[in-house]
Amino acid sequence: SNTLRIAVMPGDGIGTEVTAATLAVLEPLAKRHGIGLAFEELRAGAFCYRDTGTAMSEETFEKAAKADAILLGAMGWPEIRTPDGTEIAPQLDLRFRLGLYAGVRPFRALPGVPLALADPRAREIDFVILRESTEGLFFSRGRGTVTEDMAEETLRITRPTTERLARFSFGLARRRAARRGRKGTVTLVDKANVFRAFAFMRGIFAEVAAGFPDVAHGTHYVDAMALDLVRRPWAFDVLPTENMFGDILSDLGAGLVGGMGFAPSADIGDTHAVFQPAHGTAPDIAGKGIANPTATILSAAMMLDWLAERGAGQGFADAAAELEGAVDAAFADGLRTADIGGGDGTAAAAKAVARRIGAA
Amino acid sequence: SNTLRIAVMPGDGIGTEVTAATLAVLEPLAKRHGIGLAFEELRAGAFCYRDTGTAMSEETFEKAAKADAILLGAMGWPEIRTPDGTEIAPQLDLRFRLGLYAGVRPFRALPGVPLALADPRAREIDFVILRESTEGLFFSRGRGTVTEDMAEETLRITRPTTERLARFSFGLARRRAARRGRKGTVTLVDKANVFRAFAFMRGIFAEVAAGFPDVAHGTHYVDAMALDLVRRPWAFDVLPTENMFGDILSDLGAGLVGGMGFAPSADIGDTHAVFQPAHGTAPDIAGKGIANPTATILSAAMMLDWLAERGAGQGFADAAAELEGAVDAAFADGLRTADIGGGDGTAAAAKAVARRIGAA
Ligand SMILES: CC(C)[C@H](C(=O)O)[C@@H](O)C(=O)O
Ligand SMILES: CC(C)[C@H](C(=O)O)[C@@H](O)C(=O)O
Repeated sequence: SNTLRIAVMPGDGIGTEVTAATLAVLEPLAKRHGIGLAFEELRAGAFCYRDTGTAMSEETFEKAAKADAILLGAMGWPEIRTPDGTEIAPQLDLRFRLGLYAGVRPFRALPGVPLALADPRAREIDFVILRESTEGLFFSRGRGTVTEDMAEETLRITRPTTERLARFSFGLARRRAARRGRKGTVTLVDKANVFRAFAFMRGIFAEVAAGFPDVAHGTHYVDAMALDLVRRPWAFDVLPTENMFGDILSDLGAGLVGGMGFAPSADIGDTHAVFQPAHGTAPDIAGKGIANPTATILSAAMMLDWLAERGAGQGFADAAAELEGAVDAAFADGLRTADIGGGDGTAAAAKAVARRIGAA
Repeated sequence: SNTLRIAVMPGDGIGTEVTAATLAVLEPLAKRHGIGLAFEELRAGAFCYRDTGTAMSEETFEKAAKADAILLGAMGWPEIRTPDGTEIAPQLDLRFRLGLYAGVRPFRALPGVPLALADPRAREIDFVILRESTEGLFFSRGRGTVTEDMAEETLRITRPTTERLARFSFGLARRRAARRGRKGTVTLVDKANVFRAFAFMRGIFAEVAAGFPDVAHGTHYVDAMALDLVRRPWAFDVLPTENMFGDILSDLGAGLVGGMGFAPSADIGDTHAVFQPAHGTAPDIAGKGIANPTATILSAAMMLDWLAERGAGQGFADAAAELEGAVDAAFADGLRTADIGGGDGTAAAAKAVARRIGAA
């Protein structure tokens, strides 16, 4: 079989640590499943900006765009900012420039990992926030106007992107339904009771929904969803939403299942995709070797799955499933990272997962 | 002492039920503390819109504006909408027209009320979300532009409102600190890492903070705050934020302390104030007599407190404190409303609270 090229961007802070841990797991996994993965490390991020004056060079961007997939650690650093005071976040540029409209953020209760909610049904948490990642309020990034007395940003929602997001949502719900053996449900999260732009978004979702009669379809206001994610998160499946709403709700979701260390993500477009943990660079623990690599490892599993769907072959799908299973098994068997009060560091966590590859 | 005039707008759905329950508690309370309250009931809301063509007549608005305070139930109804598809929400008009920039939404664990989080420290939850309520994304309400292919809304942040909100935040933190016997902390919740408008907001908060050296001051990104409200909500005190962010985070906060039935609120400006539960009209349970009136009763306590601060006299402050205490005592003694799985209806809950007035 042919070899797929993975652009690896470790980024800043713990980004470099969790990326190294993930590569250490991917190597034996690839060997075992006979899948060809060639990793090319690329430099980008806040320290790159500090040292070179650009957060991601055009050359780097082009190399990343040519790869079959991009695996990213985390980028940004509080003290390193752009002239307008915002942070260095080339991962946002990747989303915009590569048209990665579907920010897929799955939340699942891993065996053994302590959950935030008291209700035992929290063990059944298994939903996906689908954060539109190229427009919404983030359309305004770098475009906001500021005068002495007033600042404005623009939230933009377009029909083409919303149609794509809707189709992606229903397709994802259908695939999840097949895996889970029950009907899928797409719940659009908006604020259509107050804003025309969200009534517009609702209308487009309703149109697209008609083409997916096998998937249930509903809507929910974003404030009510914040409440329900605390009250009954086990009731939800696929939750598409606007960019800023998705940013907020996906951190909430992470809080439910153990924190950001357990929140993988994928930014997917029609031709490209970036896989990265939902967490940041964690300056407070960077360099200590205690960051939890689980979110990145699970992001890599999403990457293998995505490559399989795009025709890379069954070996990739098998590898993805085994990697997820190995993570579950490691935690079920007692792996406890520092973020959940345990003593296992980054390398130990990677080792615990790697050890379970091929063990089942 | 003279009599203060309270405009009462029960609104729609359970709004009318929780308002009636609250008035039933306020009457004996006022008698006991010798405070004069004259209630004037005013009609507004979705059914008013359906029946009269306007959600709140100018005459009603003027009467409300002339009162010493406004007590509101809840307004809106899913099937009754404006021509552009958004819901009827005259409470938003009150916020805009009366300049009620400070949406005060306190969250406190009441004795005996089951909490969402497993961590026992959740019993110490005691924070306030201060939702700016006249601009931010809601500036765009009714102003969004929609074409065939695109919709846009504008988020606006102005210096004067932000300065007022900041002063209100620090003042509130100072008053809370005096009551709680510990230093107050204001944590601005924004997204300054991505948007200039929030960097602008941060700058103004920093300027105002300099005038309140006795109050600690920090900032937090809104996504990180959604995570931390799930992970360690007991660590926070006063959380000012943009309108849309505050809408989302305050429902999250309600989820932590038992649901919307326990979430009072006050929309306060420099000259007027509206007190209302943070919940909606709950069409699913409207008319059944089972709505939890606690949020409205606690909103009324906030009203008495606000009137006291504005010079109505110590009797009002005492009445506010006693009302809060009576609510706590009722739940500590076993009051269980339907929303937390109990059998006590709206009237029974009001009676349980009223019975504890004058009992301590
Ligand atoms: C770091 C930040 C710019 C980024 C975002 O807001 O998208 C992060 O919060 C995320 O969720 O990926
Ligand atoms: C009903 C709705 C318009 C309102 C809002 O969004 O402000 C409500 O959610 C609230 O929080 O008061």
